[in-house]
Amino acid sequence: MTSRQQRSAIKVGLIGLGTIGTGVAKLIQANKDLIRRRLGCGLELTKIADKDIKRDRGISLPEGALTNKVQDLVADPEIDIVVELIGGYEPAKKFILDAFAHRKHVVTANKALLAVHGEEIFEAAEKAGCDLGFEGSVGGGIPIIRAVKEGLAANNILSIYGIINGTSNYILTQMTDERRPFEEVLAEAQEKGYAEADPSFDIQGIDSAHKLAILVTLAFGTPVTFKEIYTEGITQITPLDIEYARELGYRIKLLAIAKWNKKNGQPDAHGEIEARVHPTMIPEDYLIATVRGVFNAIYLMGDAVGETLFYGKGAGAMPTASAVVSDLIEIARNILKSSSGRVPVAAFQKKDRWPIRLRPMDEIRSHYYLRFIAEDRPGVLSNISGILGNNNISISQVLQKGRKQGGHVPVVMMTHQAVERDVRSALSEIDRMPYVSGKTVLIRVEAEGE
Amino acid sequence: MTSRQQRSAIKVGLIGLGTIGTGVAKLIQANKDLIRRRLGCGLELTKIADKDIKRDRGISLPEGALTNKVQDLVADPEIDIVVELIGGYEPAKKFILDAFAHRKHVVTANKALLAVHGEEIFEAAEKAGCDLGFEGSVGGGIPIIRAVKEGLAANNILSIYGIINGTSNYILTQMTDERRPFEEVLAEAQEKGYAEADPSFDIQGIDSAHKLAILVTLAFGTPVTFKEIYTEGITQITPLDIEYARELGYRIKLLAIAKWNKKNGQPDAHGEIEARVHPTMIPEDYLIATVRGVFNAIYLMGDAVGETLFYGKGAGAMPTASAVVSDLIEIARNILKSSSGRVPVAAFQKKDRWPIRLRPMDEIRSHYYLRFIAEDRPGVLSNISGILGNNNISISQVLQKGRKQGGHVPVVMMTHQAVERDVRSALSEIDRMPYVSGKTVLIRVEAEGE
Repeated sequence: MTSRQQRSAIKVGLIGLGTIGTGVAKLIQANKDLIRRRLGCGLELTKIADKDIKRDRGISLPEGALTNKVQDLVADPEIDIVVELIGGYEPAKKFILDAFAHRKHVVTANKALLAVHGEEIFEAAEKAGCDLGFEGSVGGGIPIIRAVKEGLAANNILSIYGIINGTSNYILTQMTDERRPFEEVLAEAQEKGYAEADPSFDIQGIDSAHKLAILVTLAFGTPVTFKEIYTEGITQITPLDIEYARELGYRIKLLAIAKWNKKNGQPDAHGEIEARVHPTMIPEDYLIATVRGVFNAIYLMGDAVGETLFYGKGAGAMPTASAVVSDLIEIARNILKSSSGRVPVAAFQKKDRWPIRLRPMDEIRSHYYLRFIAEDRPGVLSNISGILGNNNISISQVLQKGRKQGGHVPVVMMTHQAVERDVRSALSEIDRMPYVSGKTVLIRVEAEGE
Repeated sequence: MTSRQQRSAIKVGLIGLGTIGTGVAKLIQANKDLIRRRLGCGLELTKIADKDIKRDRGISLPEGALTNKVQDLVADPEIDIVVELIGGYEPAKKFILDAFAHRKHVVTANKALLAVHGEEIFEAAEKAGCDLGFEGSVGGGIPIIRAVKEGLAANNILSIYGIINGTSNYILTQMTDERRPFEEVLAEAQEKGYAEADPSFDIQGIDSAHKLAILVTLAFGTPVTFKEIYTEGITQITPLDIEYARELGYRIKLLAIAKWNKKNGQPDAHGEIEARVHPTMIPEDYLIATVRGVFNAIYLMGDAVGETLFYGKGAGAMPTASAVVSDLIEIARNILKSSSGRVPVAAFQKKDRWPIRLRPMDEIRSHYYLRFIAEDRPGVLSNISGILGNNNISISQVLQKGRKQGGHVPVVMMTHQAVERDVRSALSEIDRMPYVSGKTVLIRVEAEGE
């Protein structure tokens, strides 16, 4: 690397020329002048590695920039920053660690990798004295990582509620607007390119849980990995429940939720947090309930700032490229000022991060929406509420309407705050009763009050 | 100043212990451990200057920290960063320039000062090699300055629509919800402390224009001052127009609007921008239309990221303190890494900022809501539309209903896109007609299409 005075450009190597990689290449070229006006120095994409170096991506690249030898790129002494955009665990992780071994800074949008191997990668970055940018890993172009690490740095983050998977939000929005079943909407989303051929990461909540693991890690100063997060997808959501939710004044969204459980009313840095992903009923007048289609939104509550919300496109080539290139600009500023590592990679100083207990799902407290399919005869309702009562669950609202099917009708009950374990135990008892048909539907409800 | 290795704390001097200053002092104390865990070093409030050093603010300060001699604070060799929170033009400006003269970094939330004397202050900061943080000047605790300077740095910002004055948004929300007149709601807001005794900056759009001047300066890389921005407040908004807006599917909000007028469909760095503050009708299903009460929201469209929205509390002691302390943390990181000035104070490099033409109000194109009070007799409507037509204004919708008052009825017309000059000219003609009573109400409408 040349010294600060001689710099005419910061040089970038890109691994992976897929949809997002192509977006990044296009953005660096299209906004070249703008980037120079902001950064005070050029940002040049000098090398690109991809398995396929033949296919036309509609971009013009310098002669010899394309290679299929990642090792050459990672070892290239000219290159300052390596961008990893191939996704998945391996060889992405190997490439990133190799880049750090060669003292390159790294930018990635690989949420799955960070959610599973984040600690190893953070440690390698710190050991190498290099920066790692991953704004594109959560919320696409929304600068939420920066908000958590910097813009809201003075706050204890008390809670996070995120719609952070565009595909599932698109499906739920369509199901709600058009009263159509999940399978049908999913098939259409796949046709339109809003859902992948294998949509499981999106519809099973896995992608949201990956992103939540990253947010929680940064917000609470604690290492949290994907597998610790309770994850439930949207595949079981039916138009019937969406309709009941609407009648009750709610929308159903796939939410990524994290909370800092206070101790004696105070946040406690050694206390306990919650982190979970599941379909959630939220009051229709909450701002986050109005987030439609493929858009993402992250609601964040800080102890000083209060409520905030960050909204934008959570996926797509150009929104993600916006995040990746903003990371490149940030890292380039550090290169120019020799200030790499000025913000700790995981938001907190290494020695000041520690494990915090994650409250097991059994212990969480929530309001619940329960839908039974029960025989339409006297005594059934009182028997159900009796079992709930025996399990410390009190009911705030009952809704019984809709078509009778073979002597059975849907019965909806909204509960006051209850403990998940109690609810599970009550439902396993109720579901064994001869008067109910099928498994009771449970949807957690975010609402104020007890 | 001591060298990097010996630092146990970054030392802060605060000028102005009013509501926000007290909030800053409280936040630095309350979240001391958190700040240290993020920054890797303490942040200490060592000196506070205020005219009144007797009054109890409910905070405990170190012995001798309070002074009424600002000059001592600004010249104190121990102090690294000076926080200015007295507001107004003078002596705030003098204090800030003095601080730079003593090579102190500065944090301020003083939007009026920056909107009027920003260039002089930016220049002083650059000359001194010092940082200037002003996140608290726009949108309270919402990290919107950072988003424009860093998080969205890869984007040409194409447009900004902001609800950036909580008081006026509170008043409009109350007027809409409760169908009450402006004066009544204002009086109530003053009682509740949501509006100041002299509310003119808020209700006349001046505060919004201050903030818009700052946003435009950063977003478009051009110096723009408050006086260049067309500003119209909410004092003329009536329940009648709010009601018509509602019937037509709109909400009325005081919006701060900035647009980059494209040339041949492309953004042009030497082109032309619009910047204006006025009551605006926006479709009720736009996310920004749902922002209620004292909350702020800034909608920002970038050429890569697309639509984004940032939402939160735009005022108040703790939200603003959140912004101020996040600036302190950012500047402290630069002190620790000797990287002050790594992000240019006005987002673009000094040599890469230049004046851009601000489109005069006469030349803007918009949709318009026009409400006439006209005689209820044949020929009037066709005469009005004739005058509009002669001025190149075509009507998309007419609404005539409501009580007749002395032979006159309200007539509402929604126009297609028209040029402001034409609309003004048509209205001055119509308002002279014997069949209209009073001055025609004009409200600009944000809507898609021609």
